[in-house]
Amino acid sequence: MIIVLRLNHRRIRDKRVSTHVGLVSRALGADKIIYTGDDDTGLFNSIKSVVKNWGGAFNAGYASDYKRVIIGYKKKGYLTVHLTMYGLELEKEITKLRKAKNLLIIVGGEKVPADVYELSDLNVSVTNQPHSEIAALALLLDHYYKGNELNLKFKGGKKIKPNPRGKTFY
Amino acid sequence: MIIVLRLNHRRIRDKRVSTHVGLVSRALGADKIIYTGDDDTGLFNSIKSVVKNWGGAFNAGYASDYKRVIIGYKKKGYLTVHLTMYGLELEKEITKLRKAKNLLIIVGGEKVPADVYELSDLNVSVTNQPHSEIAALALLLDHYYKGNELNLKFKGGKKIKPNPRGKTFY
Repeated sequence: MIIVLRLNHRRIRDKRVSTHVGLVSRALGADKIIYTGDDDTGLFNSIKSVVKNWGGAFNAGYASDYKRVIIGYKKKGYLTVHLTMYGLELEKEITKLRKAKNLLIIVGGEKVPADVYELSDLNVSVTNQPHSEIAALALLLDHYYKGNELNLKFKGGKKIKPNPRGKTFY
Repeated sequence: MIIVLRLNHRRIRDKRVSTHVGLVSRALGADKIIYTGDDDTGLFNSIKSVVKNWGGAFNAGYASDYKRVIIGYKKKGYLTVHLTMYGLELEKEITKLRKAKNLLIIVGGEKVPADVYELSDLNVSVTNQPHSEIAALALLLDHYYKGNELNLKFKGGKKIKPNPRGKTFY
């Protein structure tokens, strides 16, 4: 199982970024996302409607306390991996991630509490440059799956037929 | 040269997503981003301040007419590649991208005009599932560079020293 924990969602400011984090998690092979911060019905409805229309069994949940989530999954044997530009290089840590059967990937928001760096088993960077937690998550999942996640099939839902010039469905 | 063309930026709604598109372009090895839509000083200032603080020679520009940009770069011999979930699979097209010396990568916004599908040399998808243009751009650049862009060095600016537990600079 791969679970993504998105920290400190703010209903207005993070609406689109948090939605992207959720949809990237689903499209690239995570099983579930848990949001902390604002409990945002609109955000859950966006994710649910994508799952309904496009298939698969992806789940979105809410938790008020990130510490309990991280500690809880550690107790269940998950490797907890915090994405931060200050962390160790992804490529040097990727085999540890692949060896773990179950991953909790922690994706920060604007300000990450200091204890997240301590609670996580690993702090991992996708470049040490400022860019985007959405991109960092996508690259982590892609490297973890060695690109195979790009061919994931989702049961039920609409199916696009790749088209050189327009929009077609199977 | 790799240039990213971000279509139809809207000052309020797309503030953060368009910033992420710019920072991902820079961090993962593109040379320049051109925005169409709103001419947004705040957005340019965000990008410029990252370049100033973190180094390198990344550029951000504005154009009012996306068609002229696409046609202009085609005339200069650039391969123009439109990222869309409806396009051909990235993995099947990636050698064409690598063979091209110069790329214009077109990143759509909420609604992409139909002629973008016609004007582009290639319409390429990063999965045929809905997710994020930020993630799609990151994966395109990462696959294009075969992961080597993760070790890019940027001249001047701050340098993070990868740290297992906190934030350190060289």
